[in-house]
Amino acid sequence: MSLIVTGTIGIDTIHTPGGENREAVLGGSAAYFAAAASFYQTVRMVAVVGDDFPSEHMRTLGKFKGIDTGGLEVRKGSKTFRWGGKYAENMDHRDTMFTELGVLLEKPPTVPAEFKDSAFVFLANTAPAVQMQMLEQFPKRVMAVADTMDLWIDTARADLEELIRRVDGLVLNYDEAELFAGKKNTIRAAKKILELGPKFVVVKKGEHGCLFIHRDGIAAMPAYPAEEVVDPTGAGDTFAGGMMGHIARASARGISHVPTSFDVVRKALAHGTVMASFNIESFSLERLATLKHEEIDRRFDEFVELTSVS
Amino acid sequence: MSLIVTGTIGIDTIHTPGGENREAVLGGSAAYFAAAASFYQTVRMVAVVGDDFPSEHMRTLGKFKGIDTGGLEVRKGSKTFRWGGKYAENMDHRDTMFTELGVLLEKPPTVPAEFKDSAFVFLANTAPAVQMQMLEQFPKRVMAVADTMDLWIDTARADLEELIRRVDGLVLNYDEAELFAGKKNTIRAAKKILELGPKFVVVKKGEHGCLFIHRDGIAAMPAYPAEEVVDPTGAGDTFAGGMMGHIARASARGISHVPTSFDVVRKALAHGTVMASFNIESFSLERLATLKHEEIDRRFDEFVELTSVS
Repeated sequence: MSLIVTGTIGIDTIHTPGGENREAVLGGSAAYFAAAASFYQTVRMVAVVGDDFPSEHMRTLGKFKGIDTGGLEVRKGSKTFRWGGKYAENMDHRDTMFTELGVLLEKPPTVPAEFKDSAFVFLANTAPAVQMQMLEQFPKRVMAVADTMDLWIDTARADLEELIRRVDGLVLNYDEAELFAGKKNTIRAAKKILELGPKFVVVKKGEHGCLFIHRDGIAAMPAYPAEEVVDPTGAGDTFAGGMMGHIARASARGISHVPTSFDVVRKALAHGTVMASFNIESFSLERLATLKHEEIDRRFDEFVELTSVS
Repeated sequence: MSLIVTGTIGIDTIHTPGGENREAVLGGSAAYFAAAASFYQTVRMVAVVGDDFPSEHMRTLGKFKGIDTGGLEVRKGSKTFRWGGKYAENMDHRDTMFTELGVLLEKPPTVPAEFKDSAFVFLANTAPAVQMQMLEQFPKRVMAVADTMDLWIDTARADLEELIRRVDGLVLNYDEAELFAGKKNTIRAAKKILELGPKFVVVKKGEHGCLFIHRDGIAAMPAYPAEEVVDPTGAGDTFAGGMMGHIARASARGISHVPTSFDVVRKALAHGTVMASFNIESFSLERLATLKHEEIDRRFDEFVELTSVS
């Protein structure tokens, strides 16, 4: 069934502790998500950039044959969202060097009429008020999942709570779940979030894997054991892209109905893990842009092998 | 095949952030390990306490039918090792309130002659020099595994390196692996340790599970998703007890030869995870003392289910 992502497309500057840095590379939550999901099935993308958006980045997005860029708006006279981040030595923490919201301060992108029947909706990280506005435009959705971050917990909590009430699932980081819920235990933090209404919470723990806490049960997974992390930017969004891509594909193939079975969910988490593991091997979307389906299959099998008990 | 543990038996004082505290409860690396391993097969225990060791604690050890206490020495005129720890709010960090080494400053316990043919040897955490002395007394060993901690990395590094050269496997915490190896990536840290000679390193990550890094491959596992942590003391030792208990039992049953297969290792890590998950539900050995085999089987099946991708 149809999959859509709304979120940001940005121009990123990334500084890493090894001293390797990149200026003005393609980034943004929707870009990372869509690139990963595109390996599973067509993913519609709704996002807005300014007319300063480099044609080189547009070409990069075009390399992902599974991305339908019909909802990518290039707004005249506006500036593309820019962000700069600097990673700490062990790559598990980053400081924002600068944020230029640009076009994100203006009205959100328009959802094309032909996208309004979307079934699986992923609201990639952006202001919760914008996520809600987007959500309302997909009346035929069967599953809506939102990603968020500490910034919105701190500055837009009421909006975020309202958003969480309206979605089926929430994706957020380990420390953000605990921050939001005021609980020092991840499971209890996630269960507190479930009280607001969603069916499940996916807690991303970076190098420590993920937890999927559903009203009806829990799934847990380690990360792929990566020795080399070049740039973790987008790991969470590519994780979500692999996860939602697999769920939408399984649904399209009639393997699973909504609500999705735990079997499908665990496979989806593993696909998310695999996509994130490729993403962190390079800056920006470089690795995903050259990724082959055989590589995904091989790493998926390897990951299943190294975690399987039976 | 026969399994033996050498290490400490102590009297612990535990303070938790919830305000629940316990004074003078049974603890120590060998006690926790043996209690957990005893559910898998008989485990020989070599340790020394003073004549102040409470008979109540001796009775608790006696409740574990699978522990052979033939190597538990009660030394006249000596004082049992005492330790006090205070946990931080999220239970993932603790401060030592006091350490009274007592009998640990004297000569190590004597290994009974009938224990000298032990095949699987676990050197639970204590000074590396003592661990080496113990190791030499098991000439027929087929697999020796040592646990260690940051204290020895900081204060007895040369001894520790020598110990690591002589064992088949090393068990240590996540941050300790990185501290020892000077690498900010766990896999790379473990691989650096492998250069010293052991075949594998088991990295314990507490609530984030564990990694098993072998010369020939890697296994990864999340923790059991525990909502309530009463007292994490001994989690690492009970993890090791379940792991080694399963490996020794599989070997005794002829399921696996040494070197052990990855299938057996992954099951062993899952058993370690399950035993640790029970241990943290209570202070001291209280939960393990009432634990039933059916409970272990049930949680093992549940754990396999919530992590399995296939």
